[in-house]
Amino acid sequence: MTRLPTRTIWYLEYITPELVQAAAVLQSIYEGDTPYQHVQVLETGPFGRMLVLDGKTQSSEVDEWVYHEALVQPVMTAHANPKRVMVAGGGEGATIREVLRHKSVEEVVMVDLDREVVELCKAHLPNHHQGAFEDPRVKLLHEDALAFLEGQNEPFDVVIIDVPDPLEGGPAYLLYTVEFYELVRRRLGPGGLMVAQSGPTGPTNVHEVFTSISQTMQRVFPHASGCRVNVPSFGTMWGFIACGSDDAPNVAGMEPREIDARLKDRIDSTLRFYDGVAHQGMFSLPKYIREAVEAERRIITRDNPLYAV
Amino acid sequence: MTRLPTRTIWYLEYITPELVQAAAVLQSIYEGDTPYQHVQVLETGPFGRMLVLDGKTQSSEVDEWVYHEALVQPVMTAHANPKRVMVAGGGEGATIREVLRHKSVEEVVMVDLDREVVELCKAHLPNHHQGAFEDPRVKLLHEDALAFLEGQNEPFDVVIIDVPDPLEGGPAYLLYTVEFYELVRRRLGPGGLMVAQSGPTGPTNVHEVFTSISQTMQRVFPHASGCRVNVPSFGTMWGFIACGSDDAPNVAGMEPREIDARLKDRIDSTLRFYDGVAHQGMFSLPKYIREAVEAERRIITRDNPLYAV
Amino acid sequence: MTRLPTRTIWYLEYITPELVQAAAVLQSIYEGDTPYQHVQVLETGPFGRMLVLDGKTQSSEVDEWVYHEALVQPVMTAHANPKRVMVAGGGEGATIREVLRHKSVEEVVMVDLDREVVELCKAHLPNHHQGAFEDPRVKLLHEDALAFLEGQNEPFDVVIIDVPDPLEGGPAYLLYTVEFYELVRRRLGPGGLMVAQSGPTGPTNVHEVFTSISQTMQRVFPHASGCRVNVPSFGTMWGFIACGSDDAPNVAGMEPREIDARLKDRIDSTLRFYDGVAHQGMFSLPKYIREAVEAERRIITRDNPLYAV
Amino acid sequence: MTRLPTRTIWYLEYITPELVQAAAVLQSIYEGDTPYQHVQVLETGPFGRMLVLDGKTQSSEVDEWVYHEALVQPVMTAHANPKRVMVAGGGEGATIREVLRHKSVEEVVMVDLDREVVELCKAHLPNHHQGAFEDPRVKLLHEDALAFLEGQNEPFDVVIIDVPDPLEGGPAYLLYTVEFYELVRRRLGPGGLMVAQSGPTGPTNVHEVFTSISQTMQRVFPHASGCRVNVPSFGTMWGFIACGSDDAPNVAGMEPREIDARLKDRIDSTLRFYDGVAHQGMFSLPKYIREAVEAERRIITRDNPLYAV
Repeated sequence: MTRLPTRTIWYLEYITPELVQAAAVLQSIYEGDTPYQHVQVLETGPFGRMLVLDGKTQSSEVDEWVYHEALVQPVMTAHANPKRVMVAGGGEGATIREVLRHKSVEEVVMVDLDREVVELCKAHLPNHHQGAFEDPRVKLLHEDALAFLEGQNEPFDVVIIDVPDPLEGGPAYLLYTVEFYELVRRRLGPGGLMVAQSGPTGPTNVHEVFTSISQTMQRVFPHASGCRVNVPSFGTMWGFIACGSDDAPNVAGMEPREIDARLKDRIDSTLRFYDGVAHQGMFSLPKYIREAVEAERRIITRDNPLYAV
Repeated sequence: MTRLPTRTIWYLEYITPELVQAAAVLQSIYEGDTPYQHVQVLETGPFGRMLVLDGKTQSSEVDEWVYHEALVQPVMTAHANPKRVMVAGGGEGATIREVLRHKSVEEVVMVDLDREVVELCKAHLPNHHQGAFEDPRVKLLHEDALAFLEGQNEPFDVVIIDVPDPLEGGPAYLLYTVEFYELVRRRLGPGGLMVAQSGPTGPTNVHEVFTSISQTMQRVFPHASGCRVNVPSFGTMWGFIACGSDDAPNVAGMEPREIDARLKDRIDSTLRFYDGVAHQGMFSLPKYIREAVEAERRIITRDNPLYAV
Repeated sequence: MTRLPTRTIWYLEYITPELVQAAAVLQSIYEGDTPYQHVQVLETGPFGRMLVLDGKTQSSEVDEWVYHEALVQPVMTAHANPKRVMVAGGGEGATIREVLRHKSVEEVVMVDLDREVVELCKAHLPNHHQGAFEDPRVKLLHEDALAFLEGQNEPFDVVIIDVPDPLEGGPAYLLYTVEFYELVRRRLGPGGLMVAQSGPTGPTNVHEVFTSISQTMQRVFPHASGCRVNVPSFGTMWGFIACGSDDAPNVAGMEPREIDARLKDRIDSTLRFYDGVAHQGMFSLPKYIREAVEAERRIITRDNPLYAV
Repeated sequence: MTRLPTRTIWYLEYITPELVQAAAVLQSIYEGDTPYQHVQVLETGPFGRMLVLDGKTQSSEVDEWVYHEALVQPVMTAHANPKRVMVAGGGEGATIREVLRHKSVEEVVMVDLDREVVELCKAHLPNHHQGAFEDPRVKLLHEDALAFLEGQNEPFDVVIIDVPDPLEGGPAYLLYTVEFYELVRRRLGPGGLMVAQSGPTGPTNVHEVFTSISQTMQRVFPHASGCRVNVPSFGTMWGFIACGSDDAPNVAGMEPREIDARLKDRIDSTLRFYDGVAHQGMFSLPKYIREAVEAERRIITRDNPLYAV
């Protein structure tokens, strides 16, 4: 069989209009439109299988574990005893996978508006969800996360926001406002924690959404713990911000030793990215990131949202 | 539904190591390997549906009619009464489609080694073959074209070589040698004609194969009529060379008026590219092409073939 | 010295939003802005030295001789005795170079609005102009071509329009209107001829400007002779259209033999692309191009111009 | 003036054969060859002014401060009283710039083989060196760093290796061997420290050189402190490893408070990336990086070097 001298099909992601990341495509697994978005599942050389929504990389097989452990494990571990968890978004099923590792968990309500995307992920991203959708503790709903939470009476121990950030457009922008955070605060149980994926955190793009999400959370919650990790398929550093009830622990301040002890007690499986030292690394932000957050003045509200230009 | 700001999947073809043509891919229809080659069927923005073998464009919906009319119609029209035709290669079915337009044709033997490619073209390139494979005059064989022709006793009126040119590698290089042309000459009936797709003919690449194929044909046949056409999806001009028995007409020398008269008599359908004036245009080569052919000294033989570097 | 595994700097030209031609850049010779346009002079791998204006390729060392011979030689050769010639545009100096080959020429007035571009071409494109600017028969003016021609009393034998076509934007669009052609007609001497570069002529883009320029010329002049040539660096076929006074010859109808005889008499240097056979090839258009021209209904006027979208 | 619809010149860096980072080039400042390497100075949209050697990004204006502070400040701050410093490589002058911030420094010997690259950086990268070459404490030598160090009798307090890593080819590979580290160890003064840039540290490429450099250092020195930072223009995370004499402090173990106190005492200028918290962040490596280092068995020696494939 003839060898190709070079790859012929490439996936191009415009990180900015003047910066492009191109990955060789080995196979196009799926491409189509749902009522909400354009969906591509690609098998790529550098990143394995990828989910791409509206032309933006959502996650890749090669590094989704960095993203999902970093999103989920700090708040799950910092919480005293997480039993009831809400996940907004997270269509690939890897977010609930990380939640379900914790033996304390009794119920995970995953609310993802786009039923078709979830079905496509179930079918085409087995290494992402690893069967998590089959776990009896999972309750999967396809409705608006905001409306769902408004209708809830029973409190959640942990709420995880894994939806596109405001600048990507779509209705998810409402989940990044003072109003939504106030709603979450009312729905959190004692010692309850929330975390949200919070956009890029490189030297040139930390100002896009990370800094204002952080300031907005600080307006509503007693503290906001920002962290960041390297997710190569995103072409930039990625940030998460955690916060919680008045009586909740400060996530950033957890001691590495305590984290390692809790992980040993609470989960049976093995993590690849996260442990006590990794926790310390991801929450110890470089000076310029901390300064950018402090200098930020924007507060995101329903009437004054962040929009994609 | 969100609009993509720009295409995310692109098909890159290296015309040379320093010249790339990139076409936006709307959908990847098929990708896989046959025993002989890597096959891709792509739906692209600029060229519609394309067949790509081993990373090289074979034909596209938007301009395949230029290629196939230019390959087939000059020899079919120049022949006095073409009844029995052989096509080597031509997996898309568009070459036999053009042959079958001629009411005089009684049998077309299409010999394409790669059964799977032909099946894929039948399934995925309906606008290419337009049902030609169903014509009862077609006899489809999957074997080596050289061995097939050696085993034939009955002469052919027209032989059409639509296989990869020597520099693309593969066994087809043997169909571009003095030895093969001598075999064809013995298998042509009275007034019989042959034509071969003969590679790029731009200012910088006409020397790759076109000039030596022309000289090689002239060594065996009384004359070799080179022509060229613009096939945009190839990213360069493309050449064909026709030749024939001692008693055959000189294809290049056909009068436009005579061609138009014959087309009117012989075919019922409508051509898009070819007629008498187009014939004159494609065979009236620029000075630098004619000089390059005249200056060429290489003769391709079985022992001294052209190979891809 | 270390060898580069692959080129690192590439020049990308969007032929359409979904078709890109990428050429490796060996050296960036010049980049800057004039009062009228953005100018780049690039040394590229596949095309040698190139002039790029506002991101569009104007000409390249490797194939400018195809473009400039095809633009200039048909009208110069068809004219009975060309003495006074006007060139609008043609900043590289290669258009006047082709005009000056004709011993009959006594004066070439080159009118190019952008003085800086001409200076840059003089300095950086020596293989384009080959010293033509030094010829005492050349009169170089930097003013508006339309205003210049309005102010002229003495007639021209040949007028050559080598400015951006209407869709490229800029004031040059006024040189493609009925009104301008009527002005040219009044300024042509007996047997006088005009030719204009007339945009792309591939299967998918011949409708952009070529067909309507042709119809517009036919509205004013007794006939319009369209032709096209392959200029690889443009990434598509390119067209020119010639026309002339009532008593001028039909350029397309010139006999190859007559052309060769005139070239032998009139010029001492050697052409690379053009001669009698090449003339016949470039003016014998494929059927689909002729049909597209015939079907066109747009007439370009000052009040109804073609604009870039 | 016309606006470009999209950038036309792009700088492509192959991070791997299947992953490309493309940055729009605003201007090509310089391109040429020295006796040792191919040099490009580019003004790019996303990264500002960049130095590219043999097609690999060395540093960019937009993020060089992350790289250079992370390379230099941890060892300089951890050392009790750094007076005499050696820098191998570091042609841009930003490495010595960071060293010179420390008021204790009496002499920096910068040994960079390629005089021309240093001259080009002086001329074209003013925002990198910020005049550092003019500091009277700098002694600039253009010779082989290994031979230089062998010839030295006077000890150094800090040695900084800022040369291409082994896989980039070139003579610098000798500065990553057991033998070289043994030489450095003999040349370090009491409490002396060394640091070396140590290649990419992403999930897919940390094994390239980082893990074996770490193991090699641990073979010679009492401990090796690995860290990593995000340098966007490199298209991947980047690592550094520090080590030192038997009586030197463990760099990774420095307390954030102590670092902040020392920085306040020792330097007058303001850092952008580095302080106590940033130090903790960069040395607290994710679990998979620490595991990869522990699992590594390769020791790099002169007879068993790491080579580019």
